[in-house]
Formats: sequence, C-alpha cells, structure tokens
Amino acid sequence: MEINLPEVLAEVTTAFERYEAALAANDTTVLDELFWDSPHTLRYGAGENLYGIAAIRAFRNARPAPGARELLRTAITTYGRDFATANVEFRRPGVDRTGRQSQTWLRTPEGWRVVAAHVSWMG
Amino acid sequence: MEINLPEVLAEVTTAFERYEAALAANDTTVLDELFWDSPHTLRYGAGENLYGIAAIRAFRNARPAPGARELLRTAITTYGRDFATANVEFRRPGVDRTGRQSQTWLRTPEGWRVVAAHVSWMG
Repeated sequence: MEINLPEVLAEVTTAFERYEAALAANDTTVLDELFWDSPHTLRYGAGENLYGIAAIRAFRNARPAPGARELLRTAITTYGRDFATANVEFRRPGVDRTGRQSQTWLRTPEGWRVVAAHVSWMG
Repeated sequence: MEINLPEVLAEVTTAFERYEAALAANDTTVLDELFWDSPHTLRYGAGENLYGIAAIRAFRNARPAPGARELLRTAITTYGRDFATANVEFRRPGVDRTGRQSQTWLRTPEGWRVVAAHVSWMG
C-alpha cells in the first residue's frame, strides 16, 4: 500500500483545509457535509461523545461558533487511495492547554469524508 | 466500499482485544508490535503528543504500567478489507472522568497495525 501518494495527499489536504475553514466560520452546512452520512460516524469532542451523524449534526447546530484557533502542527498521512488520517495540535486564544484533533478520512462516492474524529485538550 | 464485512470485523476485533490485553498487562512487546513501524505513526496520549514509532516505543518503555481499566462502550467499524477504526470509552479506578481511546487500524503485510491513536479524558 502506497503511503502519501502526492495526488491523494493533495486531495485530502484540500478536504482538511475546507473543514478547517468551515470550522472557523461555523459553517455547519459544510461541517455536516464533510462528516460521513452514517450511523457509524463517531465524534469524541472535548466535552461530549457523539455516536452517529444525527447526534453530530444536532450538536453542531446547537452550539455557538467555537471561534478562532491556531494550528501548531499538522500531520496528514494517506494510505493507498481511499484512506487517510489528519492530526493537528492547536491553540485557542485564552486557553492555556494544547488542543489535539484527530480525524480518519474515507473516500466515498460523494468525496472525502470524516468517519471518526476525536478532539481533546492535553493534560 | 463494504462496511463491517463480518470476517474483517472479526479480524480487527481480535487485534483490538489483543491490544487491550497487552495494555492491561503492560506487555510493551505486543504494544510495540501492534503499532505501525513507521515514522508516520502518531499517538496523542492524555498528557503527551508523540510522532513516529520511535517516540511511541520510548514512551511506553519508560512509563509504569497504566493499570486496569473498564471498557464502557466499544465501537469498531471496518471499511473494505484493509482499514478500520476502533473507539472506546473507558473508566479507570479512582478517576472521575470518562476516558476515550481512538485508534485507526491498517492491514499491513505483517498484520493489522494502529497507524494513529488518540487517548484523552473528557471534560
């Protein structure tokens, strides 16, 4: 299995950056679109554990905009042509701790989608 | 892409359970074996961010046994034949918060391996 094929890495990076921009803008339409439309989709957030796309969408649509964050380190890896992981360390203004966001991406007929995510504060 | 093909799900569940048993026993040989032998392998722990298999192995070999934990909820999903995610909520004796562990698994020529992991306490 080929790791980090340049064209696949470029695709996933584009999808990842689209997600990051939507998060900053609290564009829930795009955030919803980029998570896999499945009951198997899962998101562990800093303060909640969400199972299934319906729970994830309900959470997003109920919360205020999470606001700006700065990415400190980004690690995107692709495995073959259909699978990828994207991991970042981030900081939010006024928060002393380092945040971490992990996403597992899958190529679907509709495009690249996050099938599982985990966000937390370190320590 | 077929989700949760029974034989693939059985393979990943076996690998996941082997990892869990090794964690309980602090069997670092098995823990090291089950993480992908690659500089791309990544592990965000409750208190550290580790990049590359060398950093992950050094961390494991330096830390005391993490001790027993109880799994509260387990969600394993497979995507086709070569990729999977395994997510659990857990509790440790004496810790009030819920722990979460996310793993992304890849089938390699040597067997199923964790390519990325994220462990955190909620809240």
